[in-house]
Amino acid sequence: MVKAGIIGATGYAGQTLVGILTNHPDAEVAFVSSNSYAGQKFSEIYPQYYEICDQTLLSTEEAKDAIGDVDVVFTALPNGLSFDIAKKAMAAGKKMVDFSADYRLDDVKVYEEWYKTEHQAKELLAQKVYGLPELWRDQIKGASLVANPGCYTTASIIAVSALVREEGLIDTNHIIIDAKSGITGSGRKKDISLLYSEAGESVKAYGIAHHRHTPEIEQEVSKAAGKDIMVQFTPHLMPMKHGIFATIYADLNKNVTTDDIYDVLENAYGDEKFVRIRKGMCESRFVVGSNYCDLSARVDERTHRVIISSCIDNMVKGAAGQAVQNMNIICGLDEAEGLSNLSIVAP
Amino acid sequence: MVKAGIIGATGYAGQTLVGILTNHPDAEVAFVSSNSYAGQKFSEIYPQYYEICDQTLLSTEEAKDAIGDVDVVFTALPNGLSFDIAKKAMAAGKKMVDFSADYRLDDVKVYEEWYKTEHQAKELLAQKVYGLPELWRDQIKGASLVANPGCYTTASIIAVSALVREEGLIDTNHIIIDAKSGITGSGRKKDISLLYSEAGESVKAYGIAHHRHTPEIEQEVSKAAGKDIMVQFTPHLMPMKHGIFATIYADLNKNVTTDDIYDVLENAYGDEKFVRIRKGMCESRFVVGSNYCDLSARVDERTHRVIISSCIDNMVKGAAGQAVQNMNIICGLDEAEGLSNLSIVAP
Amino acid sequence: MVKAGIIGATGYAGQTLVGILTNHPDAEVAFVSSNSYAGQKFSEIYPQYYEICDQTLLSTEEAKDAIGDVDVVFTALPNGLSFDIAKKAMAAGKKMVDFSADYRLDDVKVYEEWYKTEHQAKELLAQKVYGLPELWRDQIKGASLVANPGCYTTASIIAVSALVREEGLIDTNHIIIDAKSGITGSGRKKDISLLYSEAGESVKAYGIAHHRHTPEIEQEVSKAAGKDIMVQFTPHLMPMKHGIFATIYADLNKNVTTDDIYDVLENAYGDEKFVRIRKGMCESRFVVGSNYCDLSARVDERTHRVIISSCIDNMVKGAAGQAVQNMNIICGLDEAEGLSNLSIVAP
Amino acid sequence: MVKAGIIGATGYAGQTLVGILTNHPDAEVAFVSSNSYAGQKFSEIYPQYYEICDQTLLSTEEAKDAIGDVDVVFTALPNGLSFDIAKKAMAAGKKMVDFSADYRLDDVKVYEEWYKTEHQAKELLAQKVYGLPELWRDQIKGASLVANPGCYTTASIIAVSALVREEGLIDTNHIIIDAKSGITGSGRKKDISLLYSEAGESVKAYGIAHHRHTPEIEQEVSKAAGKDIMVQFTPHLMPMKHGIFATIYADLNKNVTTDDIYDVLENAYGDEKFVRIRKGMCESRFVVGSNYCDLSARVDERTHRVIISSCIDNMVKGAAGQAVQNMNIICGLDEAEGLSNLSIVAP
Repeated sequence: MVKAGIIGATGYAGQTLVGILTNHPDAEVAFVSSNSYAGQKFSEIYPQYYEICDQTLLSTEEAKDAIGDVDVVFTALPNGLSFDIAKKAMAAGKKMVDFSADYRLDDVKVYEEWYKTEHQAKELLAQKVYGLPELWRDQIKGASLVANPGCYTTASIIAVSALVREEGLIDTNHIIIDAKSGITGSGRKKDISLLYSEAGESVKAYGIAHHRHTPEIEQEVSKAAGKDIMVQFTPHLMPMKHGIFATIYADLNKNVTTDDIYDVLENAYGDEKFVRIRKGMCESRFVVGSNYCDLSARVDERTHRVIISSCIDNMVKGAAGQAVQNMNIICGLDEAEGLSNLSIVAP
Repeated sequence: MVKAGIIGATGYAGQTLVGILTNHPDAEVAFVSSNSYAGQKFSEIYPQYYEICDQTLLSTEEAKDAIGDVDVVFTALPNGLSFDIAKKAMAAGKKMVDFSADYRLDDVKVYEEWYKTEHQAKELLAQKVYGLPELWRDQIKGASLVANPGCYTTASIIAVSALVREEGLIDTNHIIIDAKSGITGSGRKKDISLLYSEAGESVKAYGIAHHRHTPEIEQEVSKAAGKDIMVQFTPHLMPMKHGIFATIYADLNKNVTTDDIYDVLENAYGDEKFVRIRKGMCESRFVVGSNYCDLSARVDERTHRVIISSCIDNMVKGAAGQAVQNMNIICGLDEAEGLSNLSIVAP
Repeated sequence: MVKAGIIGATGYAGQTLVGILTNHPDAEVAFVSSNSYAGQKFSEIYPQYYEICDQTLLSTEEAKDAIGDVDVVFTALPNGLSFDIAKKAMAAGKKMVDFSADYRLDDVKVYEEWYKTEHQAKELLAQKVYGLPELWRDQIKGASLVANPGCYTTASIIAVSALVREEGLIDTNHIIIDAKSGITGSGRKKDISLLYSEAGESVKAYGIAHHRHTPEIEQEVSKAAGKDIMVQFTPHLMPMKHGIFATIYADLNKNVTTDDIYDVLENAYGDEKFVRIRKGMCESRFVVGSNYCDLSARVDERTHRVIISSCIDNMVKGAAGQAVQNMNIICGLDEAEGLSNLSIVAP
Repeated sequence: MVKAGIIGATGYAGQTLVGILTNHPDAEVAFVSSNSYAGQKFSEIYPQYYEICDQTLLSTEEAKDAIGDVDVVFTALPNGLSFDIAKKAMAAGKKMVDFSADYRLDDVKVYEEWYKTEHQAKELLAQKVYGLPELWRDQIKGASLVANPGCYTTASIIAVSALVREEGLIDTNHIIIDAKSGITGSGRKKDISLLYSEAGESVKAYGIAHHRHTPEIEQEVSKAAGKDIMVQFTPHLMPMKHGIFATIYADLNKNVTTDDIYDVLENAYGDEKFVRIRKGMCESRFVVGSNYCDLSARVDERTHRVIISSCIDNMVKGAAGQAVQNMNIICGLDEAEGLSNLSIVAP
């Protein structure tokens, strides 16, 4: 039985992790912690967990002291707040899966430029692994520190990597990612703009040209391409709770058909349990509540462009589900354990 | 041209008032004020008003000094904050329409018991009028201080008054009002429970047995009945922005049919511009964006009960629209002026 | 391994059943059928099931021929369409859980009066059991034909039964059930009134005084009370996909407190896995995706009334989840098997 | 008083037109017609119009006979159904504003290729004017037959035209329009995919590479550029009723800043009543219920691209509002008449 500690359990990603681990046959939640709600029961903050997870929330300090008692530490804290936790967990020989951006970027300069924070655990960057199993499974196997990818980045990287790995398939100077996210992606914040009365029945773009997931996407697709790539990434907020729908545009360098692109996707992910290649169109609701990333493709022969649709649940494959997938890998469990059940709420 | 000053313009009711007066042929917004946003433009807080209302928001203090320049003062502040404004407006011989509960209750003891605040302008209670034109039009005509009714209360009182005025029609000991409101009714507050990610796709009851609109409903229906009446009032929050749907249950003392009840409603409101009596069923969307109160009725011959549905837009007939209706009356304008246009957003 | 056949798998209740059984450790979906979509893959109708349930949908006729191969037949068809299926299943010595109203009512006259259909399997009414485990667990154990309760009725009966079983606690002549349901409750129908553009952001009542769940509620609460009871039941449609919130009003005959009512609920359901008694307020989202029925209570000492809130997911405890709970009981499995996992989509 | 006849009044665009004209000071609705609902009252189909527009719906045939009695005919019918109406209206010397695509495309070959219909009034194409006042005001003034633009096209053309008119500002080979629309844009159709239970809380793309608004956008932006331009247009459906948000990407040929782009927009639309240039970000709710097109711009200096956000209400500036704007122009009224009032439902 894998003992898991969740530091930062009362954000949306943290609570989703609690939900998944509560149903995991080979893992158990050893402790949950929260800065804002320490001392209260988890089910007081998320009443849907009443009689399911009534554990008392530790403070972050108490959580640090409890690291010794667990096998895996999950940190779902804001960026820049888990440096010392990581050091402590590594020193104690524990495994750690971090939800923040603190260990995702290989180049500390890029991190400090985009996140405007000084990195206080540079020495750990060498040993961390970027936790996207579909790309880095072998490296994750032996890892102690896993940087769990962002939500937009997961949907984007899975789709774009497959294209850029095909030598000369697309013009890597014109990759545009127009992403649409549910509102849980903005977190559980006391923010007027996130109120139902404001965010409901409306769409907006944000962070145009400056969203911090941009360098993360560029890092990973550049590695896949074997050369530096810049992408245009624009996130939007939709009036829905869960889900990300990324629409990806790339100019084609070759005369290919939609079927050819599906072959490319098949080659890349045909054996992946959590990537589904759809001949029909994607809809975000098809993946909500699950750990799937759905992909569909269309070639526009008129404009010589390929348009890829990539969908995930931002809280599952985009956060907690992927974190458990990583936990399963580093703990030698079946990668899909605790993740195979589709939410029964669909449609 | 009626000069109107709006104190507390950046709440949802206040902003709706700005919207209505901006389109009013015989009124103009002389000033808008806000505690939280003084010094900013109204359209910075509500960008939909860009190029429509770009006035700079006064502080409450500046607004008080500006009372002298207007004909009508609208106060859309939290309860207990407009006592001195009312005194000043009355002293200056101005008209005032207040959105709070401060002048709605005739009995100061009831006010202080339910609102846990000491009333600091008791002397004004004698001269105030309860601003429900369908019941108190003649009194409103000459009034200087109009207490604009609450949203739930407007929907409830219009329906129940018609029933209780019919001698012996219903058993006044068993009146149950189950009301469903859109989320704007909870205001523009930094409150986790009002986030789209929390309030969306869910329903809840709140304030059971203790909601402050209860004594207001009881006061008005008791006057209509000519005897003291207690009602059971339970509000619910729905995942929608606007609208109130009140389902009202009363035991019948007479053998009457649905048609008989429609005659009762016809007699009560047949000539009212802003009350629509529907043979078909009400839906809250049918009144959203308008100043209408829609009513429909069904008699259950099996249980000898009448069920009335009453719908309003909580921000229009439940707040700003009714306030303008009151302004029109006290200023001698056509009661419907500026209120006849149905929102073109429907459906 | 329990072999289950699902007749009528493409309605919302049917597809939820597929979802639950797909994750059930001791059951498997032997076949799925559909009148409208026979010959197509289940995952073509519900693409979220791609790579999860790609079985080809049988026609109803083919499904009947396949009854012999399964242990349990689930029928999720419109009322009046499963009479011959039930006869065939019983003749073949199979277990059957029926989602329609055809076997819920003990009195065939009541059925024919409210459903305006002639009952064509009267002989089976004697052996059927009403499938509400919290009330009829022992009878269900040995049953072959289980009438799975309706959604509104499940939420209502669980709450009201506890009250009426307390000798003299409430005045059984004034029980009012004001229920609010998500739109999946209206089914997967080509109906303009169910379009997002119509049903979104709005509330309506329907079936006032005539909804067919009324006699079903009355039958069960009358049994619990040991005398005939009439209830006032009014359903409403809310702009949300899943969930039912029932607000139940009853006049008190005794001087009791909120705590006393909680004792009553504790005595009735304290040991029930799928009934959660909440001291805090219910919200429909707290049960969405789960098989729970949440209850909370408040006494209004001013009006001498008790108000109970009862919430379920209309598709889970109100349909497919309860059906699986019944299957578990009649097949001798752990009653909670396959039902313990809370949807990970929350909130 | 302009007499207007509305043929096809019960679609969402038609009903919005009824709503606007009902409030228009210098126009009146002479008749409304409907194929599906002829003989019923308009307010039976749209109950929100009860006591506002209770006119009986004519059949299309009756409507044709009534053309002689009106000044302006509005046709809001599916593509290909108003050819003979247009001939009749022109023969009778009437003005006509058509909502379909039948007269939008200059080249009949392009029409027949994209719409798979034979054009049956080719002779009228020479005299029609494309009804986008911000581009073709002078031509509209004298026109008899106005082709009212599509919703996606209005939002797209207004934004892109300004860019391409600037000699050498952008690379016209890489214009990508990623558009997000509310569900009313899919019409009032008995279509499972448009049900609240399906379309709610989800996003999808549709018509990738083949949407019929593509040639319309290309025709107009090519004229503005003075050369042939192809665009990549991808529409998406959002869980909201109203509004379009178009995100437009173009590669820059010059070193320009965000401010420079705002100068370009100012030059193009600074004097336009219904185009608002926002320094802040657009949100679709800011224009819902109004006839505005909101524009904002950002230059990504890292990627040398400009990203324009363009928002309209698909039913107002994208359909009925623009149609009334056109009517005002061709009838010599103030262009903004009946269109200046912002919906009071906001937010």
